[in-house]
Amino acid sequence: MYIPTYEDMLAAHERIQPHIRRTPVRTSAFLNELTGAELFFKCENFQEPGAFKVRGATNAVFGLDEEQAKKGVATHSSGNHASCLSYAAMLRGIPCNVVMPRTAPQAKKDTVRRYGGRITECEPSTSSREETFAKVQAETGGDFVHPYNDHRVIAGQGTCAKEFVEQTDGLDMVVAPIGGGGMISGTCLTLSNLAPETQVIAAEPEQADDAYRSFKAGYIIADDAPTTVADGLLVPLKDLTWHFVSNHVSEIYTASDAEIIDAMKLIWKHLRIVMEPSSAVPLATILKNKDAFAAKRVGLIVTGGNVDLDKLPWMNS
Amino acid sequence: MYIPTYEDMLAAHERIQPHIRRTPVRTSAFLNELTGAELFFKCENFQEPGAFKVRGATNAVFGLDEEQAKKGVATHSSGNHASCLSYAAMLRGIPCNVVMPRTAPQAKKDTVRRYGGRITECEPSTSSREETFAKVQAETGGDFVHPYNDHRVIAGQGTCAKEFVEQTDGLDMVVAPIGGGGMISGTCLTLSNLAPETQVIAAEPEQADDAYRSFKAGYIIADDAPTTVADGLLVPLKDLTWHFVSNHVSEIYTASDAEIIDAMKLIWKHLRIVMEPSSAVPLATILKNKDAFAAKRVGLIVTGGNVDLDKLPWMNS
Repeated sequence: MYIPTYEDMLAAHERIQPHIRRTPVRTSAFLNELTGAELFFKCENFQEPGAFKVRGATNAVFGLDEEQAKKGVATHSSGNHASCLSYAAMLRGIPCNVVMPRTAPQAKKDTVRRYGGRITECEPSTSSREETFAKVQAETGGDFVHPYNDHRVIAGQGTCAKEFVEQTDGLDMVVAPIGGGGMISGTCLTLSNLAPETQVIAAEPEQADDAYRSFKAGYIIADDAPTTVADGLLVPLKDLTWHFVSNHVSEIYTASDAEIIDAMKLIWKHLRIVMEPSSAVPLATILKNKDAFAAKRVGLIVTGGNVDLDKLPWMNS
Repeated sequence: MYIPTYEDMLAAHERIQPHIRRTPVRTSAFLNELTGAELFFKCENFQEPGAFKVRGATNAVFGLDEEQAKKGVATHSSGNHASCLSYAAMLRGIPCNVVMPRTAPQAKKDTVRRYGGRITECEPSTSSREETFAKVQAETGGDFVHPYNDHRVIAGQGTCAKEFVEQTDGLDMVVAPIGGGGMISGTCLTLSNLAPETQVIAAEPEQADDAYRSFKAGYIIADDAPTTVADGLLVPLKDLTWHFVSNHVSEIYTASDAEIIDAMKLIWKHLRIVMEPSSAVPLATILKNKDAFAAKRVGLIVTGGNVDLDKLPWMNS
């Protein structure tokens, strides 16, 4: 297992800068008053394909040598990683093969195809996915870019925290959502070197709190099939992300689905940005643990902005 | 009738800069491809109170002499002007009285009150509003700040186009929504001096197309009670705004409510910002008149972002 270094992150930033956006940091006097903290929101939802995952994907794609690049990349994902990897591959003009369950939302498939990704459908089970992916990879020779347990991906995600430090005047804490742990790992990688006084805090849905339980237990606990409105955060930690979580994360807080939806509406209303339920978990946990954040300068990473506008979570009831 | 000058706009910018945001300009590769133009969106929805109207309101409030400031300001409005004027008055610590129809949405009343505005309710008729407002003004001595037909307000709104020019590398056209014409007038004021080669184009809902008909007829036509999803654009032109519209606007395009809602969803989805139906009218008219904008560098002013998230227009059907 190769652990990416601070230098890998710096090299990643140099490599991807021409292809990604230096996303803005937004603030809201209203939300500061409501929380009693000074909040800074890093808007990764403003990346062209709508998620921070374009950083890691672009680092992997543009780091390939010419020979491998011809064969392209491959992954299995039904979320933002699939569209971001397709987008990065499109920018370099190389093939991208994605294995997706046939039950994935049509909108997600459309986005991957819009960016030139080739989808091979599998059944919605781990065995079908692995079998199908092995076949696709054998046929295409595409380089496997895992959604988070990949040192190139983590180094890429770490570039977000680098910009965040540059854009703010020092932060006491950075809070990011945790699913598989790619963004949190990149954030740990960068901040432990660049701003070791800044705490890294992970925010997780109660209904998929495997990272929280892993953190408390001291070893990886993986759930079978959690369900939460924060559908970008369902996957478990893996060895590489566990390394960063277990060594550098100060705390993991959780929030219920109802709290996540409330926080999401607050951000839509007061920051006036469109973002995913997963990206609202940090604010939900801050509102729930106000004492821990009182009077602190707190950075929140708004990880993604791809939602189905016809099926907003507060419309379900 | 005093016509505000370019120097008034420059003085306004100096006056309000400490109190307002220099809002960002966003782009979308997807929307560029869709329209065949190069689009730049100036995000006035990102002002703290959520609308460009904070510019004119702040200019009026901070331009008052000490004696008048003690008596505060007053206006009648059920929209963004009321909350923005309250917000500006709060920043200066002076009273703000607002006359609003008792039928105005509770959310709008709440926002005005959150910023310390004092609401006096009237019946939803012009006569009741005028009578009530005269009474409030007589009692308080508050300086009347009209939502748009006021030279201080127009000079303030013009600061948006100044920033827009500074933030972009030259624009062929700027498209802004038109209701009473405050933003369009400020835009004309600034661009006719700073970038006279840049065309100013107004975008109006078909269902409230009084400015369009005025423009074609050569005199002000006011409708009685238009209804459109773009509810920030219901009011008619007045003498001061007509001056700018008739002298400096190159064209007025209109769009149907269905087209406005489609454009709004496109912006929410691809720019990932929360904005009002009124602010979607420019993109709707561009999509409808692609030839007029093809290959041009087009600036769009996203005028406001205050929507009721529980009553989004595409949820009605």
